[in-house]
Amino acid sequence: MKTKVVFHVNRDDQESLLIALGNMENLLKVVPPEEAGVYLLSNGKSVKLFQRDRASEYASTVKSLSEKGVHFLVCNNSLNKFGIKPDELIEVCEVVPAGIVELIKLQSEGCAYVKP
Amino acid sequence: MKTKVVFHVNRDDQESLLIALGNMENLLKVVPPEEAGVYLLSNGKSVKLFQRDRASEYASTVKSLSEKGVHFLVCNNSLNKFGIKPDELIEVCEVVPAGIVELIKLQSEGCAYVKP
Amino acid sequence: MKTKVVFHVNRDDQESLLIALGNMENLLKVVPPEEAGVYLLSNGKSVKLFQRDRASEYASTVKSLSEKGVHFLVCNNSLNKFGIKPDELIEVCEVVPAGIVELIKLQSEGCAYVKP
Repeated sequence: MKTKVVFHVNRDDQESLLIALGNMENLLKVVPPEEAGVYLLSNGKSVKLFQRDRASEYASTVKSLSEKGVHFLVCNNSLNKFGIKPDELIEVCEVVPAGIVELIKLQSEGCAYVKP
Repeated sequence: MKTKVVFHVNRDDQESLLIALGNMENLLKVVPPEEAGVYLLSNGKSVKLFQRDRASEYASTVKSLSEKGVHFLVCNNSLNKFGIKPDELIEVCEVVPAGIVELIKLQSEGCAYVKP
Repeated sequence: MKTKVVFHVNRDDQESLLIALGNMENLLKVVPPEEAGVYLLSNGKSVKLFQRDRASEYASTVKSLSEKGVHFLVCNNSLNKFGIKPDELIEVCEVVPAGIVELIKLQSEGCAYVKP
């Protein structure tokens, strides 16, 4: 059975994101990427953390995790609220229409929930 | 299948509650209320946020969401701890004996968990 | 059916831990210990809270809950990161290799998730 998890970040709090990234790295040392389904769902003010301008410290970690199969999902409702365009985000981000809907759907599909 | 979710607030932190209310509004724009089972569980210090005296900014949002079927559950253990009487709360709140028990039960019945 | 829950603490924030301990006490007043599966998973900076030197205020509560069957799981990755040896922890703690893996596994086995 796959190891499935969604990390939820929703504040403009870089520490939460760095904790999530570290957790993912630790997880993928133990679980082979092909046996894992790992998601990060960003909504609310946390979407600002994925703007390339803000992300110089951790953009390379995000990209490296994306290459291992991690999905970085960013809420479009929140992008609109803060006037951020999708093309301002780290390139590997995937924009979803409503983050809260995705967060519920992923859990109903068997993802564990982790709030860093 | 129903879209089921419980939002958990437990700090005396108005921002958490406002985020939860905003998430619920976004959710109910996408999912018809009759296909949703949406709960907010308040325990710990967060029960103070539901006192009518404190809630003038968001009481109308709480009532409007309640009319759409959202259940606002408030922990009686916590009310007792802080000396708050049920009749001091926004009228639509439902008091449950032990919030933690309800939080576990809702998840065991298929609710996703969201900590704003 | 068993009442199963994992409490997740990951910050060096004593209030989170005290809330979790209070929630557990309330839970075990209602659910007989033999019908409950209660876990606390500590990773990240929160592992420091379980050092005996730091824990004088709540070590006895931790021990008492452990006697009722609560498992206190502490992440070894995090202990290594902060240079803490397992024998510095409150005696009842159980060290697990990777906290994040355990947190996902417990949820996949039916534990509800609670972030205090």
